[in-house]
Amino acid sequence: MPELRKDPLTGRWVIVSVERGKRPDQYAPLEAPAVLAENSCPFCEGHEEATAAEICALRPAGSAANTPGWQVRVVPALNPILRIEGALERRPHGIYDVVSGVGAHEVVVESPRHVADLSELDTPQIDLALKVAMDRLIDLERDPRFRYVLFFKNSGTAAGEGKHRHSRSQLIALPVNPSRIKDELDGCLRYFEAKERCIFCDLIRQELLGQERLAKESSHFVALAPFASRFPFELWILPKRHSADVSLMNPAERLDLAGLLRETLGGLRRVLKNPPYNMILHTAPFRRPRLGYWKTIDQDFHWHLEIVPRLTRVAGFEWGTGFYINPTPPEEAARFLKESPGG
Amino acid sequence: MPELRKDPLTGRWVIVSVERGKRPDQYAPLEAPAVLAENSCPFCEGHEEATAAEICALRPAGSAANTPGWQVRVVPALNPILRIEGALERRPHGIYDVVSGVGAHEVVVESPRHVADLSELDTPQIDLALKVAMDRLIDLERDPRFRYVLFFKNSGTAAGEGKHRHSRSQLIALPVNPSRIKDELDGCLRYFEAKERCIFCDLIRQELLGQERLAKESSHFVALAPFASRFPFELWILPKRHSADVSLMNPAERLDLAGLLRETLGGLRRVLKNPPYNMILHTAPFRRPRLGYWKTIDQDFHWHLEIVPRLTRVAGFEWGTGFYINPTPPEEAARFLKESPGG
Repeated sequence: MPELRKDPLTGRWVIVSVERGKRPDQYAPLEAPAVLAENSCPFCEGHEEATAAEICALRPAGSAANTPGWQVRVVPALNPILRIEGALERRPHGIYDVVSGVGAHEVVVESPRHVADLSELDTPQIDLALKVAMDRLIDLERDPRFRYVLFFKNSGTAAGEGKHRHSRSQLIALPVNPSRIKDELDGCLRYFEAKERCIFCDLIRQELLGQERLAKESSHFVALAPFASRFPFELWILPKRHSADVSLMNPAERLDLAGLLRETLGGLRRVLKNPPYNMILHTAPFRRPRLGYWKTIDQDFHWHLEIVPRLTRVAGFEWGTGFYINPTPPEEAARFLKESPGG
Repeated sequence: MPELRKDPLTGRWVIVSVERGKRPDQYAPLEAPAVLAENSCPFCEGHEEATAAEICALRPAGSAANTPGWQVRVVPALNPILRIEGALERRPHGIYDVVSGVGAHEVVVESPRHVADLSELDTPQIDLALKVAMDRLIDLERDPRFRYVLFFKNSGTAAGEGKHRHSRSQLIALPVNPSRIKDELDGCLRYFEAKERCIFCDLIRQELLGQERLAKESSHFVALAPFASRFPFELWILPKRHSADVSLMNPAERLDLAGLLRETLGGLRRVLKNPPYNMILHTAPFRRPRLGYWKTIDQDFHWHLEIVPRLTRVAGFEWGTGFYINPTPPEEAARFLKESPGG
């Protein structure tokens, strides 16, 4: 009999095939492998003119902007979903609400070389890419028009990457708070009110004790397959030290995270043969003083990364219910990843 | 500048490209058109042995079950996501919650002929298919283990249909309430508490007044492109008469709905060239006496059908935020459909 598992944060249920779990090799690719069109890649070193002027870059002192020589480079998105210019306007439209589409949409190019996935870079380079992205996140936080910055990665066509396979991540600054993040914050607050403990800290404690859903572990982080995984091989990476806000991560923790990301994404790549995936950061929203009901956010929320390989289709059942059907139990996913050699 | 629009029910925001809206012919197909393998179709008349024994069928008096001659036939799903046998067991797993995977999963075969889409049937046949589906929904409601029955349709491979293109819908009875439905009910209740009116009734009133998002209209129903459409050419079909529960629809209304469905789905088929789509019924959950806080549900909730063509990919931004990016304003979608000839 399949099992319905409840996500302790949001109350969302997932149907897990606990008996005959689907193995990695039973997922047909949702897409043909992308063709690497290196010559035409706008993110490669030497093609700086193919993007809009860079927002910032890690480059040697004295080297000019928009020229080769950089290590990590941040540029405006080629097709931004929100515009940086303009005032934030909130207005009614009959019974409806509208906000002007003001925001920022930036691309963090994680390597000057034409490398498809973050896990192909070495740990110090991943650390630099994380540093630059976190610096941008902190900088965007200063803009009073914004309430949240989403940091994420679309890897592979089925995950929305587009036609160029060059390792990069995106930052989108939003004038409103994402409902997904709000739902999580609400869940964390409910748990904290009942127990005076962070739900993620409890979850990490249980998973370190049981080990069956633990995929990888480093000094400061754990990578685990969540109990109510929506997707096969879904993984969460969480800091062991309680912290609501990713911008408070220290350099030693960041370097440790870079190594764990390399191992975890590399493990997924080997076990699932280069799957398309999305990676999404969940961190506390800023402008907190204005949001009265999140008073305990520093105590009750715990930042983390979600990694979701795109192996299954979302259809009428998922849209209609908000529930998911997961053909691979997280315990099996964790076992496959644990047995895969590191980065 | 794009526009952020808020769904008045759930608070979910959608980014709408209001300036340069994408036209129907600018969406590349997400999949190759499915090959009709009529000979091997388990849903065709004459292939009754290819499915499990029928649950019920509309067939002439005296005709034997699982033989040809039926008009509409209901069979167990070939790959059920939940099992009908077994007790409903709720148990903890450390800090987590688990419910046994008890449920029903049925397929309503809408025609004995190998027809790909509901809109290719004539109105009386669509009416029969709706009647049988609603009868099954009411019957499943009697099982005390269930809390909600999801009625939906996956049409086309990218919408999760599977390899056989034969017009059919699905019913899944669940032992828990879907979070999507709960979110809607919460939104409806909040609106009702503030205004003592049904939010959907207000919405229908505004859309009939403005007309710009109205795609089709019949005696008893409207088909409209919702203001905060998550997807291009998303449509909602709502009864003009306030009603929380689809099972209270009368035969005249059902026949009228059948005609409107034929026109609306036929319009989508012509404008978007046979797009894959999902159609999902949202109706009030049953076992209501046990759910104290939905006291006003008959007044505040309004049943409806959601139709979502699958033309865009959902990627990191959507997963991370719960928000959507819609490249075609609903006003334009409604105009294209309004101008398309009826069923």
